[in-house]
Amino acid sequence: MKAYKDMTREELLTEKAVLEKQFADIKARRLKLDMSRGKPSKEQLELSHGMMDVLHSDCYFNDETGTDCRNYGILTGIPEAKRLMGEMSEVSPEDMIIYGNSSLNVMFDCISRSFTHGVCGETPWAKLDRVKWLCPAPGYDRHFRITEFFGCEMITIPMHEDGPDMDMVEEYVNNDPEVKGIWCVPKYSNPLGVSYSDEVVRRFANLTPAAPDFRLYWDNAYSIHHLYDEEEEQDIVLEILEECRNAGHPDIVYKFISTSKVTFPGSGIAALATSRKNLSDIKKYMTVQTIGHDKLNQLRHVRFFGNIANMREHMKMHAAILRPKFELVEATLDREIGELEIGTWTKPRGGYFISFDSLDGCAKKIVAKAAEAGVRMTDAGATFPYGIDPRDRNIRIAPSYPTMKELRKATEVFVVSVKLVSVKKYLKEMDAAAK
Amino acid sequence: MKAYKDMTREELLTEKAVLEKQFADIKARRLKLDMSRGKPSKEQLELSHGMMDVLHSDCYFNDETGTDCRNYGILTGIPEAKRLMGEMSEVSPEDMIIYGNSSLNVMFDCISRSFTHGVCGETPWAKLDRVKWLCPAPGYDRHFRITEFFGCEMITIPMHEDGPDMDMVEEYVNNDPEVKGIWCVPKYSNPLGVSYSDEVVRRFANLTPAAPDFRLYWDNAYSIHHLYDEEEEQDIVLEILEECRNAGHPDIVYKFISTSKVTFPGSGIAALATSRKNLSDIKKYMTVQTIGHDKLNQLRHVRFFGNIANMREHMKMHAAILRPKFELVEATLDREIGELEIGTWTKPRGGYFISFDSLDGCAKKIVAKAAEAGVRMTDAGATFPYGIDPRDRNIRIAPSYPTMKELRKATEVFVVSVKLVSVKKYLKEMDAAAK
Repeated sequence: MKAYKDMTREELLTEKAVLEKQFADIKARRLKLDMSRGKPSKEQLELSHGMMDVLHSDCYFNDETGTDCRNYGILTGIPEAKRLMGEMSEVSPEDMIIYGNSSLNVMFDCISRSFTHGVCGETPWAKLDRVKWLCPAPGYDRHFRITEFFGCEMITIPMHEDGPDMDMVEEYVNNDPEVKGIWCVPKYSNPLGVSYSDEVVRRFANLTPAAPDFRLYWDNAYSIHHLYDEEEEQDIVLEILEECRNAGHPDIVYKFISTSKVTFPGSGIAALATSRKNLSDIKKYMTVQTIGHDKLNQLRHVRFFGNIANMREHMKMHAAILRPKFELVEATLDREIGELEIGTWTKPRGGYFISFDSLDGCAKKIVAKAAEAGVRMTDAGATFPYGIDPRDRNIRIAPSYPTMKELRKATEVFVVSVKLVSVKKYLKEMDAAAK
Repeated sequence: MKAYKDMTREELLTEKAVLEKQFADIKARRLKLDMSRGKPSKEQLELSHGMMDVLHSDCYFNDETGTDCRNYGILTGIPEAKRLMGEMSEVSPEDMIIYGNSSLNVMFDCISRSFTHGVCGETPWAKLDRVKWLCPAPGYDRHFRITEFFGCEMITIPMHEDGPDMDMVEEYVNNDPEVKGIWCVPKYSNPLGVSYSDEVVRRFANLTPAAPDFRLYWDNAYSIHHLYDEEEEQDIVLEILEECRNAGHPDIVYKFISTSKVTFPGSGIAALATSRKNLSDIKKYMTVQTIGHDKLNQLRHVRFFGNIANMREHMKMHAAILRPKFELVEATLDREIGELEIGTWTKPRGGYFISFDSLDGCAKKIVAKAAEAGVRMTDAGATFPYGIDPRDRNIRIAPSYPTMKELRKATEVFVVSVKLVSVKKYLKEMDAAAK
């Protein structure tokens, strides 16, 4: 195969004609496929069906301290759930609060609380002229929507292969007291699939924020979500709470986790791990906010897994379903456009996404083209603050939800869309240069 | 029996000696009983055990539209849950949002949202100098704690037998644009157990608030929580959404409900019913806040009850357990202090509480005395804003949680405490008058 950039006008026109024919054929199939969200497939959901049986009318409902999980009581979670979620995210049970089903909601709450009540006695952000927020991008669209919704001024931080650009992060955090937080997905990041290096994590832990109420929003969404079973093929990220303690900054981080992609996305349990000082600050708020989260669902999780070893086995079963899907997409991209020099993509070892960079200015058109042929992708731009990708090139591919058969078709549609939009771009540039 | 107020000093001293002996005997029993919170008893919780069996590994998990309840999706609740919760609270399914397990959390969220983002486009309350809130009292302590936490200036509105003092409510709401809300428990109110009359509900619906972002926080916590099965012994409250629509003010109310005291207090489902305009305002927030609440628990509720008729039958079983407890407390109070003229109390036909008014200045001492003998009551004052009961007389009695045997003992302790504190008060007054 010849790279498009090296093709003559005639070659490009021939390629375009072939692609348009291919696209018309695909479109005629009236596909309806979805590669837009990181949703587990039905097959994955079935892995957790046993969790529907562990609580039943004849069982006991007490936690290990004898608290009746059916009734009111226990604000911060049952001890055995803290232990399990603690092991899942490498922190001590006493550093944790267990919440309801959505870690996104917990992050939203943390920001909302900071606006209405401030962080550990500092001025509520609602009373400040401006709150700035660092957004490593490409990143998670739902993170950016929260800070946008609260009117934060979002600052894009470039993502590298080992994490966010730390020179820039340090420059902002250590000097600007208006910078109050940063979104981080440290492991198998959304959408790049990269993990933060030890150096990056240590530089985070050693930040000396100008704002005393600056916090790392450390979304450990994919802590045990490996695609490969062998340890040498798994990413390892330093534990941030410990690094922050070692650096003498125990309070600068909130670490979030959930079982949404371990058990059921709609009915998992979420948790927050942080320092004693932050926990006490947060509990003051929680005490007023609720009488307690769903303890039966905590108990259900604990009884189903029993221990972290079983949870790890369970994640291997997820990986067995997910791995071929990632490999299918990657192999198709390699084969179909590997030599065309019209795009690059990541090959993550865990998480839920492959990140694709097209030629500049092509992402929106590619996503629109795929949609025209019945394949829904995440909106182009979504992976950047305010939904604006300055180079219009990043596309998040979510291979988890479709079946292998559907994924094969969807990837085919995507590939043809990428090629077609790229050919047209080159042709347009040639025409412009000729004038 | 002779009223204490008519006793001579000698009679009071004799009574005091008898009571002190009784109290010492009780104290020696080292009781540990709790009448402080409206917690269902173990017997009541067992009524819902069947709900633990309706979902299991071999069942289907789709809602009636085919949405998989195990996965992400459906922000505002599955249709069949909206229908069930709608029937429970006499509103249309399309007027509802279904949430997680805590209606208190939904109320907290509404207030938090109003502070950070405003109500339907009005100025966020965080940007206002002052927000005032009307608090009918005696009322629910957890309500008052929310508005206190957000720094609202809470204004006490006296409660009458047919609801809050509406002259005062109208005066404030219709003239003061700083008044943004009012806490209401319209049916079997916490703690009085009274229900709002038709006239009171209509006056609420016909308010013409000075603030466009004023809302009734209508906590329909005990909508189907009758103590008696016969309809003529049940309270009926006009449906507020309909009344507000009829009055031409469809947007002034948020109505809250939950199944916390229908199924499991820790693991019920909560809901909000309100106008289309408010729903759309709230959805803008929810879309950012979460990907969705626990739909499996919604499905569990729907499959367990099937329809509202079964839910009503279920509530009769709750009533059969609760009724004797209420009657035991009332009968004991009648018998032991009915003629002593040292207290009055309510005889509710539903809900979770009996409200007791002691002689002025005695409530704190009575609660302390009961605690000394091992019986925990709700803190005196808790039923008023800022925890300050101006006459120090209201005590909330929660008879639901203890067994009948425990309740008999606890009520005995309470009665002796009331008598002892009252005798001492009269003696002290006599001594003061003699000086």
